[in-house]
Amino acid sequence: MTERVVAVLGRGLTDPQEPAVTADDLGLTRGDGCFEATRVVTAEDGRHTVDHLEQHLDRLARSAVGLDLPEVDRAAWLALIEQALGDWSRPGEAMLRLMLSRGRESASDGPVTGVLTLTPVNPETLRQRRDGIDVITLDRGTSSTAFAAAPWLLGGVKTLSYAVNVAGLREAKRRGVHDVLFRSSDGYVLEAPTSTAVWLRAGILHTTPTGGTGVLASITQQALFAAAERGGWPTAATLARPGELLDADGLWLVSSGRGVARVRTLDGQPVECKPGVTEQLAGFAGF
Amino acid sequence: MTERVVAVLGRGLTDPQEPAVTADDLGLTRGDGCFEATRVVTAEDGRHTVDHLEQHLDRLARSAVGLDLPEVDRAAWLALIEQALGDWSRPGEAMLRLMLSRGRESASDGPVTGVLTLTPVNPETLRQRRDGIDVITLDRGTSSTAFAAAPWLLGGVKTLSYAVNVAGLREAKRRGVHDVLFRSSDGYVLEAPTSTAVWLRAGILHTTPTGGTGVLASITQQALFAAAERGGWPTAATLARPGELLDADGLWLVSSGRGVARVRTLDGQPVECKPGVTEQLAGFAGF
Repeated sequence: MTERVVAVLGRGLTDPQEPAVTADDLGLTRGDGCFEATRVVTAEDGRHTVDHLEQHLDRLARSAVGLDLPEVDRAAWLALIEQALGDWSRPGEAMLRLMLSRGRESASDGPVTGVLTLTPVNPETLRQRRDGIDVITLDRGTSSTAFAAAPWLLGGVKTLSYAVNVAGLREAKRRGVHDVLFRSSDGYVLEAPTSTAVWLRAGILHTTPTGGTGVLASITQQALFAAAERGGWPTAATLARPGELLDADGLWLVSSGRGVARVRTLDGQPVECKPGVTEQLAGFAGF
Repeated sequence: MTERVVAVLGRGLTDPQEPAVTADDLGLTRGDGCFEATRVVTAEDGRHTVDHLEQHLDRLARSAVGLDLPEVDRAAWLALIEQALGDWSRPGEAMLRLMLSRGRESASDGPVTGVLTLTPVNPETLRQRRDGIDVITLDRGTSSTAFAAAPWLLGGVKTLSYAVNVAGLREAKRRGVHDVLFRSSDGYVLEAPTSTAVWLRAGILHTTPTGGTGVLASITQQALFAAAERGGWPTAATLARPGELLDADGLWLVSSGRGVARVRTLDGQPVECKPGVTEQLAGFAGF
């Protein structure tokens, strides 16, 4: 059974074991591009459900605008995704990843590079979704308003330049926890390296505002909040300090792969959560 | 004549037109790696001079430490560089670039990826070295002390995650100038996206301190300062505001490709420079 699918815009399916991008691709040499990742659920009969595909393509298009890349060729991506899914029959959950780079440095007006991968969801991800996670906060070095008037800082753009994000995750591992919640230099909760903070306080679901914070607009969090609002839960975008999260009625990191992962401890302190709430939020988010 | 050489650690020379890294290489998917770039001068008889190769390999090794990558295999890189230069006879200046990534996501304990490219220096680079440049300052969003106690922010590590650097350069182009000098959120001069600021004030050559600023230790600036000191010029690492640079006796952006480029205007204001000083500093830096 296929354990990995790779496809390239303009070329179609390629051998996952073979190189896919050139040495001068600006996605590699500069991290100059953007990406999306979403979950694909494959049933026993081989039928696929792709989570929020339109919203992910919309966000890819917005990231491309933020990077001054050519307009995203939606039809080409949809055709490539269809081709990749046609080669994928492994039942269970997989991650669909779309990467878009500026293309080759040696061809300054040449085409962008588009690469798709499809891989099974990591068992550790499923474990964290089920059991919850321990999290530390780390300073991200930027203030909660730094990105407001500075588009070159690429706030809200899901770029391929994630070295600091993965360094944060390594720091978490070094300190014996699962994940990191970045905080701004002025002390507010921002986001995690690959997920978004959601917390419950006095009956209101909160998340961090986008815009000046540089925080990425999370599609999983938006889906969760939309369903929660339909279910009668009020929601808000709120700048909060880590201390305020410690006495919240629940704190979660949400993302397209891990779903709604309950934060059990933050900086070594327990975070309370009423029984059943995590499951209810996961349902809202489609997990 | 060969216009471009690509070589890969463990494989040797490869066709520059063919893909060199896989779709799941962490250098591509996360910008999770580091790089070096230096100048190669090739004489008419085909003999090569590589600028400061040992220092660049030293810095690559330090970047690898900063990223928790395995120890840099210096002998392997030197052999790969020798092989690449053996295929390069184009007289004039070229850029040698070494890229090191964490390797493939699908092989968590697998080997790192090492890619080398050799390309002619861009004519625009040579023009800027000769004629000087116009520069704007842009806020980098981080304070001058942000990196001091936060190794996960990767200050001083020359990572592949350069999306903000190239976004800064696009902003410069949009505003009709050549380059950007980033300033900290507390108003101090940091560095340019791919070069380092050097200025002359009251007979002293200055550059920005590394450490808490996150600024990369520049090999070209270090070579320049070492030669200048031998020539009797005092030097200093100084936190300065852009206004202090405007009434300096000269301001330059220095890097391994462009050499010592005189800044003619900063934020639209002229920057004075005594005749002959640029040429003298270029000589110190080996250009």
